[in-house]
Amino acid sequence: MDCCVIPLRFGGLSLLQTTDFFYPLIDDPYMMGKIACANVLSDLYAVGVTECDNMLMLLGVSSKFTEKERDTVIPLMIHGFKDSAEEAGTSITGGQTVLNPWCLIGGVATTVCQQNEFIMPDNAVPGDVLVLTKPLGTQVACNAHQWLEQRNDKWNRIKLIVSEDEVEKAYHDAMFNMARLNRTASQLMHTFNSHGATDVTGFGILGHAANLAKQQRNEVNFVIHNLPCIAKMSAIAKACGNMFGLLQGTSAETSGGLLICLPREQAAKYCAEIKKVEGNQAWIIGIVEAGGCMVSVVIEVQTLEDGTVQSVPPTTTPRR
Amino acid sequence: MDCCVIPLRFGGLSLLQTTDFFYPLIDDPYMMGKIACANVLSDLYAVGVTECDNMLMLLGVSSKFTEKERDTVIPLMIHGFKDSAEEAGTSITGGQTVLNPWCLIGGVATTVCQQNEFIMPDNAVPGDVLVLTKPLGTQVACNAHQWLEQRNDKWNRIKLIVSEDEVEKAYHDAMFNMARLNRTASQLMHTFNSHGATDVTGFGILGHAANLAKQQRNEVNFVIHNLPCIAKMSAIAKACGNMFGLLQGTSAETSGGLLICLPREQAAKYCAEIKKVEGNQAWIIGIVEAGGCMVSVVIEVQTLEDGTVQSVPPTTTPRR
Repeated sequence: MDCCVIPLRFGGLSLLQTTDFFYPLIDDPYMMGKIACANVLSDLYAVGVTECDNMLMLLGVSSKFTEKERDTVIPLMIHGFKDSAEEAGTSITGGQTVLNPWCLIGGVATTVCQQNEFIMPDNAVPGDVLVLTKPLGTQVACNAHQWLEQRNDKWNRIKLIVSEDEVEKAYHDAMFNMARLNRTASQLMHTFNSHGATDVTGFGILGHAANLAKQQRNEVNFVIHNLPCIAKMSAIAKACGNMFGLLQGTSAETSGGLLICLPREQAAKYCAEIKKVEGNQAWIIGIVEAGGCMVSVVIEVQTLEDGTVQSVPPTTTPRR
Repeated sequence: MDCCVIPLRFGGLSLLQTTDFFYPLIDDPYMMGKIACANVLSDLYAVGVTECDNMLMLLGVSSKFTEKERDTVIPLMIHGFKDSAEEAGTSITGGQTVLNPWCLIGGVATTVCQQNEFIMPDNAVPGDVLVLTKPLGTQVACNAHQWLEQRNDKWNRIKLIVSEDEVEKAYHDAMFNMARLNRTASQLMHTFNSHGATDVTGFGILGHAANLAKQQRNEVNFVIHNLPCIAKMSAIAKACGNMFGLLQGTSAETSGGLLICLPREQAAKYCAEIKKVEGNQAWIIGIVEAGGCMVSVVIEVQTLEDGTVQSVPPTTTPRR
């Protein structure tokens, strides 16, 4: 599960909490702070928790920073983290800072709530559809941007298929998607009767879908048809062979979207509502089928790059 | 404060939590795991919380480990951390592991409790005495042991005043003291009406005493008379000039004891009871005086190395 759920001694209350920390992957310290905070909170959002009671910040100041670098970068990262926490309606009351060879940032998010305030991610039924709330390809975009900056061999390999502007735009899109909170996505899980969700991060869409499928009480298969990607990222991934696994569903994401099981009749409404509330697109990317003895995830990819919302669920695809 | 106290939406309940992570400072991975866990929990114990509802573990696997080193060291560290959590009556339900140049270990400890279950550290009154529940000098002991192993210049400087056996014994004492939970010390804070406490870690006894003094609602001074140290550590500290600051109260400690404000008539009983319950000595090391406009900490050191419990509080010392 994305976060632990601990029953407390007090009247039906549970403690839900999660921690995450990692290394900067973009150049902008302020945005990196926001991304780290969004990434930590995302595990609470995945179980339908929309109010975080408290956050702690974890920080590693690089021992290789000059004093000037440290005094510039660290306050900006903290500022971004705090702003994101504030946007989420929570605050940071503690944490720990260490000196470390690599700069690191992360945190802890905790909430105490009643049973009806969170959605256990184990209730998918055959006929549900799978919705994804952010496009894939954040890691591809960050890498391509680094190659462009370094004008290295890898850049030489991809520059025939993408322009500098396209890479800049993809990096920008990735950055803002990673920094975006999954809070609205989480709130709407309640409105549209979600049967469970997870957030897409280091194991890629396939890894997280498989993990979610394994937790289901019903015997179900998850079948993913479409992989909505940041524009041009599938072209770059193809040009790089198996380096990312984007089209295989295994490319790592950072602070990715929620992957949500929704009743078939609710999914399109969910996507329309998230578009209306926060202006961002969500995609119906697959279905939940009755399974055999084992759960499995089958990807039959139709990459969407233009971001059109599909208004009807895709037709059922045979399991194998 | 050692941990944050967040009022919750539910009937007078508060969320208390803390996080800490650092780098190994002893050779034994299992004991290092225990120390890390004891160190994290110590911040809860400092506010009189004796039951931890949940722990998360933070782990950095060194990128410099060979596969064999990794597969030996990391499971042992985790095992030690878990055993310590179990001893504390809690368990670990999540966490985060990263690859990092330096090995790191730490965690998050969280509890939800009612107001009468924790002791705010701000209620010291003139006439209180200060009790310390573990001896000082853990960092000196760990360093001296490292010098002995490396037979380096620093070892050559101290070998005239300490024997190898004495260093081995001090290292052993430091290790077990660091791994010891402050849980009994915390429980007895309630029994003997503690007016507040803190735990002694990276800022040394003086830094943490000053921090505690600053938080008091009454205008008070803390006066520390005695610095109980692990045997031979003050001799090593003296031989090393100002390197550690042990005799100035500024030597960093890891997973140190609780520094507790107790009513004068309760302090000796507290020390006797902790000795009875867990067999470990606690020391009366100072007093709380009526202060002027500012709080201050004055150390007039009388180093105790033999570990005798003082049965009466020391006499009052003028502030300056």
